[in-house]
Amino acid sequence: MRIGKYVIEFDNRPSIVGWSSIVSKKEGDGPLGKGFDMVIEDPMFGQDSWERAECEFHETSIGILLDKTGIKDSDVDIVYAGDLLNQCSSSGFCMRDYNIPYCGVYGACSTSVLSMINAAIAVESGLMQRCISSTSSHFCAAEKQFRYPLEYGGQRPPSAQWTVTGAASAMICGKSEKNCPKIEKAIIGRIVDKGVSDANNMGAAMAPAAAQTIADFLHDTNTKPEDYDIIVTGDLGSVGSELLYELMEKEYGISIRDVHNDTGMMMYYPEEQDVHAGGSGCACCGTVMCSKLLNEINSGVINKALIVATGALLSTISAFQGETIPCIAHGVLITNGKENESD
Amino acid sequence: MRIGKYVIEFDNRPSIVGWSSIVSKKEGDGPLGKGFDMVIEDPMFGQDSWERAECEFHETSIGILLDKTGIKDSDVDIVYAGDLLNQCSSSGFCMRDYNIPYCGVYGACSTSVLSMINAAIAVESGLMQRCISSTSSHFCAAEKQFRYPLEYGGQRPPSAQWTVTGAASAMICGKSEKNCPKIEKAIIGRIVDKGVSDANNMGAAMAPAAAQTIADFLHDTNTKPEDYDIIVTGDLGSVGSELLYELMEKEYGISIRDVHNDTGMMMYYPEEQDVHAGGSGCACCGTVMCSKLLNEINSGVINKALIVATGALLSTISAFQGETIPCIAHGVLITNGKENESD
Repeated sequence: MRIGKYVIEFDNRPSIVGWSSIVSKKEGDGPLGKGFDMVIEDPMFGQDSWERAECEFHETSIGILLDKTGIKDSDVDIVYAGDLLNQCSSSGFCMRDYNIPYCGVYGACSTSVLSMINAAIAVESGLMQRCISSTSSHFCAAEKQFRYPLEYGGQRPPSAQWTVTGAASAMICGKSEKNCPKIEKAIIGRIVDKGVSDANNMGAAMAPAAAQTIADFLHDTNTKPEDYDIIVTGDLGSVGSELLYELMEKEYGISIRDVHNDTGMMMYYPEEQDVHAGGSGCACCGTVMCSKLLNEINSGVINKALIVATGALLSTISAFQGETIPCIAHGVLITNGKENESD
Repeated sequence: MRIGKYVIEFDNRPSIVGWSSIVSKKEGDGPLGKGFDMVIEDPMFGQDSWERAECEFHETSIGILLDKTGIKDSDVDIVYAGDLLNQCSSSGFCMRDYNIPYCGVYGACSTSVLSMINAAIAVESGLMQRCISSTSSHFCAAEKQFRYPLEYGGQRPPSAQWTVTGAASAMICGKSEKNCPKIEKAIIGRIVDKGVSDANNMGAAMAPAAAQTIADFLHDTNTKPEDYDIIVTGDLGSVGSELLYELMEKEYGISIRDVHNDTGMMMYYPEEQDVHAGGSGCACCGTVMCSKLLNEINSGVINKALIVATGALLSTISAFQGETIPCIAHGVLITNGKENESD
């Protein structure tokens, strides 16, 4: 049912029965390294192009998920997947290897949560029982596509973020499973464009979208930040997170500093790993959600997490044409789920 | 509920309460010209780039839809939209002008039907009541992005199709409305890649995906082609349609020649308008569905239409790297809906 104007509440509380994450060396060397299912040292993953490598990460992530859940691909009703590559080609190409109906989703770095919400809606409709949500990104493929050829060695400004190389997938099921995280509520964002046109400062472009979505969610559910164990954005990085705090306080009178973290700031050691403002890319929020966050929700370390993934919907052409960056943020409330079951 | 392995049946039969189409001069000069809501002679639509022009077509299409249905943008629960531009930028940018939650969808030329299926699932879930599905394409923007700069004047081979300039939108509602077309069933496709790598022969690449989806649909519903007033593909063009007939007959033992048409062949006068194998692009199936087809379903000229939109999920980079083209086809069964109401 709907709560307020923008929030949807899932009466059947779709279950996240499994999740998987795979990353490359730099992410494996970061503070969350031990929590990922697989770390591939070689960012080429044995392929002959960065795009093929991203596809291989994506495909492997779905493979790990199927292995972990013991569900065969032919028993999955649908995959919602997307990525940053033009025409979502990591997702489309990787789905050649699975015999599963496929719906392409585009939300830039918000794709992880957007795909998961679509899967939850499909499950709630009763039309689907087992859905995968999935996403990927690759540092080299993204730099090549959105910024400069790596060989050019362009200097990265302090506000720039580092695209995570990896992929993440989750299995959302309709039949209420005990002992796994539940999707309670969700919010699909609206486009916000505050006039930022600097493709090297995504955090600043996306912060207002995150602020709007978080404020809408808290308003519609009549809750406060302290009602959540954690509010996670992905991925504003350090610059965008600071802006988010200011915006939330000035525009909405809400402080989230005490309960907020950002997957872009969780992924790397910012100084030692020279990532400037933090991590980014579809796989940033995706892999943190599908490792540390879902693990901790599952074990009860976190009981209630509001995860808000942000996307900057620019293209190279729009940037060249001087367009500002339309941004969006989608949120999902995931709980440990055991509280209600023991009632 | 699910029927067979791949077909979903909507118990609440979502209503298509309104639809809109806008095209440019070439499409307006074609056989369906009088059925579109608006024909804009200038393909630039007063903008300074083809991408901005496509965005303007898209935005206007949604505007016409809101006008026709009398529904305010703030009363729409979600827009599912996508297009061919990198990062779906026509959709993302046009949604800056509407205050509606937005989910980006990518299915290349299958986006019109894929968006509509997503809207129908959302309505069926009960979480959304009023959903827009929407898509756009632009000949010049697509040629520039996927093939050659127009100024280069590259020779187009006979198998090439002409990207439709335009946009189309539909309003899908949950509350069962009388006297409007109903979405009865749908099928989300699986990727098919038969090894075609020629970006100038999309019809051949996509025909096997269309064949698979149509065969799956007929199998799961235990129906025959003659059970439908029309089976429409969009958009295989003349080359792909002929291949579809052969594939259906050889691989599945089914002949659809007598009930089939293709939006790529319906859009233009093939000889006089020099479009080679026919129309293509997200707006091809979109605008034909949201003009002639839905008009005729609504008036009862057609009672039962199976509309199967096909997408070729290549990118320029994948083509340069010699990759073959993963293709997909999604189908939706739309009925006049009055038959059941009089029961």
